[in-house]
Amino acid sequence: MKNIYAVKGNIIFTKTFGKFEVFENGYIIVEERYVRGVYHYVPEEFNGIKVVDYGNSIIIPGFVDLHLHASQYGNLGLGLDRELMPWLQTYTFPEEAKYSDINYAKKVYSALIRELWRFGTTRSCIFATMHKDSTKLLMDLFAESGLSAYVGKVNMDRNSPEYLMETEESSIADTEEILKEYSDKYELVKPIITPRFVPSCSFELLKSLGNLAREYNVPVQSHLCENHDEIGFVKELHPEYNNYAGVYDGAGLFGDVPTVMAHCVLVDEDEIELMRKKNIFIAHCPSSNCNLSSGIAPVRRLVARGIPVGLGSDIAAGHSLSIMDVIVNSTQVSNLKWLQSYRVDKSLDTAESFYMATKGGGKFFGKVGSFERGYEFDALVIDDSNLSIFKPLSIEERLQKFIYTGDDRNIKVRYVSGKKIEQPICY
Amino acid sequence: MKNIYAVKGNIIFTKTFGKFEVFENGYIIVEERYVRGVYHYVPEEFNGIKVVDYGNSIIIPGFVDLHLHASQYGNLGLGLDRELMPWLQTYTFPEEAKYSDINYAKKVYSALIRELWRFGTTRSCIFATMHKDSTKLLMDLFAESGLSAYVGKVNMDRNSPEYLMETEESSIADTEEILKEYSDKYELVKPIITPRFVPSCSFELLKSLGNLAREYNVPVQSHLCENHDEIGFVKELHPEYNNYAGVYDGAGLFGDVPTVMAHCVLVDEDEIELMRKKNIFIAHCPSSNCNLSSGIAPVRRLVARGIPVGLGSDIAAGHSLSIMDVIVNSTQVSNLKWLQSYRVDKSLDTAESFYMATKGGGKFFGKVGSFERGYEFDALVIDDSNLSIFKPLSIEERLQKFIYTGDDRNIKVRYVSGKKIEQPICY
Repeated sequence: MKNIYAVKGNIIFTKTFGKFEVFENGYIIVEERYVRGVYHYVPEEFNGIKVVDYGNSIIIPGFVDLHLHASQYGNLGLGLDRELMPWLQTYTFPEEAKYSDINYAKKVYSALIRELWRFGTTRSCIFATMHKDSTKLLMDLFAESGLSAYVGKVNMDRNSPEYLMETEESSIADTEEILKEYSDKYELVKPIITPRFVPSCSFELLKSLGNLAREYNVPVQSHLCENHDEIGFVKELHPEYNNYAGVYDGAGLFGDVPTVMAHCVLVDEDEIELMRKKNIFIAHCPSSNCNLSSGIAPVRRLVARGIPVGLGSDIAAGHSLSIMDVIVNSTQVSNLKWLQSYRVDKSLDTAESFYMATKGGGKFFGKVGSFERGYEFDALVIDDSNLSIFKPLSIEERLQKFIYTGDDRNIKVRYVSGKKIEQPICY
Repeated sequence: MKNIYAVKGNIIFTKTFGKFEVFENGYIIVEERYVRGVYHYVPEEFNGIKVVDYGNSIIIPGFVDLHLHASQYGNLGLGLDRELMPWLQTYTFPEEAKYSDINYAKKVYSALIRELWRFGTTRSCIFATMHKDSTKLLMDLFAESGLSAYVGKVNMDRNSPEYLMETEESSIADTEEILKEYSDKYELVKPIITPRFVPSCSFELLKSLGNLAREYNVPVQSHLCENHDEIGFVKELHPEYNNYAGVYDGAGLFGDVPTVMAHCVLVDEDEIELMRKKNIFIAHCPSSNCNLSSGIAPVRRLVARGIPVGLGSDIAAGHSLSIMDVIVNSTQVSNLKWLQSYRVDKSLDTAESFYMATKGGGKFFGKVGSFERGYEFDALVIDDSNLSIFKPLSIEERLQKFIYTGDDRNIKVRYVSGKKIEQPICY
């Protein structure tokens, strides 16, 4: 017999970009892993099913983090007064090198997963490091936790420190080993092809990774147009391509399988058109882009073109794993972008940023990030009773107050794909 | 006999803008309310005094919030997708009107003070409302808490909703009553002259307030050049002045007594020069300026001109009372300003933003915000052991990690003017 139950509370989610759906004292009917429907009452056909009553709490979809570097968790909050390229050399690469040590990996990765749990991030799209074994371990730890993730072994065979570089052959061999072993190992944790970015991958490596992606039908993630100097370097390396996106496209890594590109701060018109055509997802990482002086991605224009956009914490260039923080930052920088664009590119409001943080990024995982019928039931139960509430507020206002002023302490319960998730073990 | 004791821990503070002073396992000698000195060891003359040992904790000066609206605490996190003028009409003014009710004031003000305590804000510069009685109550509550504050009864006699407007006469009479009653009532809580801003104060009112400020020798606070439309409105109201700052100056409210102006996002060259001459403090409020689409204050240029700058949360246009959050925002927007200025206005680093958050704003209170000899001993004891630390870090790095990734849970002890402050009562 199927496991059917109802979850009761103040339900709020975004079915469409920028519009909240609210069911005050409503019910979500969950059937196994999926949402059967959202109602103001329990429909007759479900009479007698178990109701989990969360009282006056708010129930929202779980947060989706579309871009983060798990291996940089130890660097969180450090060195955030540098630009991308020197920051990579000074902080990032030396830290990533440590993941040749599986014990170090276990300690930091398990601590990271506990933090993701704490902040209500139910789905993430993760860069590990180039190290095969610790990448596998990260997938195992995610599976053990119950949280869902795409996890990528990073590929890098040029322009990187000697101590953190592969050959094309070993890079491909290690990647393929992971694809074989992990593609069907877990339901909620899957591998993803992860060339670091064009500067650190030879074109041969990129092409081979494109072939692997198609052969094993796995998605792709990478970085695109984050920073001025980075783009200049790509132009130098690949004068034969019109732009940065063109290099990925030429290598078969741009939308032949589901693809997410982080940042896209400085994409040009041709790149935007190509992204639209190839249905490329964007991981918008405003905190990171502010911290590393990269700039502000033109999210309003990207969304208007129909390009799917989700949010990314991008730790450790971003300083917070909290997607609430990223939502706030996303709205803030959109206000500055509005000024920069001479008041043309309208600011994002909370419902728009919230959409990106849930369904916008969730789409990359399938039917995730909403409470519509057929969606996987990922949810957070929010107790906002300790927040600065001195008058009756609408559910939208309570959600806004939680996002702007609450934190992990307000998240009382987490569900992923229909299952309640307890605090993961930290080794 | 004088009360002398030592506080031991990892001491870090900024004596000068942008430079950390570090005393790893050091001692601060406190004599009554004041710092006697900071040392790597206890000097012989102090042999045998009590040592309060905070072990591996970090000890920093208390945070200074140079601009916030206490009466807007109930609106925290609400409506942050509007610009200044509509936001005032829709959210702010109706909320402030409630402070005619002293019971409402007691509830919200005491909750606010508990939050300031929680986030380690030991000194604040506060806008209350136009209501005399609840403003007095706020001062009494602050005094009871042990936290230090300048508290201003807001003056407003034009261009405001009818339900939130005074006559010039009543505005002055109420202000003077407070000055008489409160100027010497408390050591750490003092009144401050607080015209809301030019648009809501007749020139006669401004002039009378200038007279009061000089007569009672109390400082002044207000808003300056926050937003494009606001500045346009001031130009319309006062074509006889060259600029916004000129109106305050013409009314005798610009530096004849210590003066702090919030925002200064869009100050022109003449205004900057006038601020420099009159030693005007600036309360830089980056979170607020992002939330209300105001823009980015030219902090690097202001500091280079020798103008004193502190940080302000500016709740509820700012969404967080945490000065750590404001430090992060300050550094982030300075990165964007660097881009906007074609890489001329150098970004602020953590030591620079930290200075603004402590000594920069602290100067407005006298010798506050540093551990130099003769400074009032305001301090926070930080336990960072739960943060993502997996390798040995310098004290500077630990402080940076706390600011970027920690929160109120890491603040274990608060001192104000030599006294340990316990959690204030919330009515």
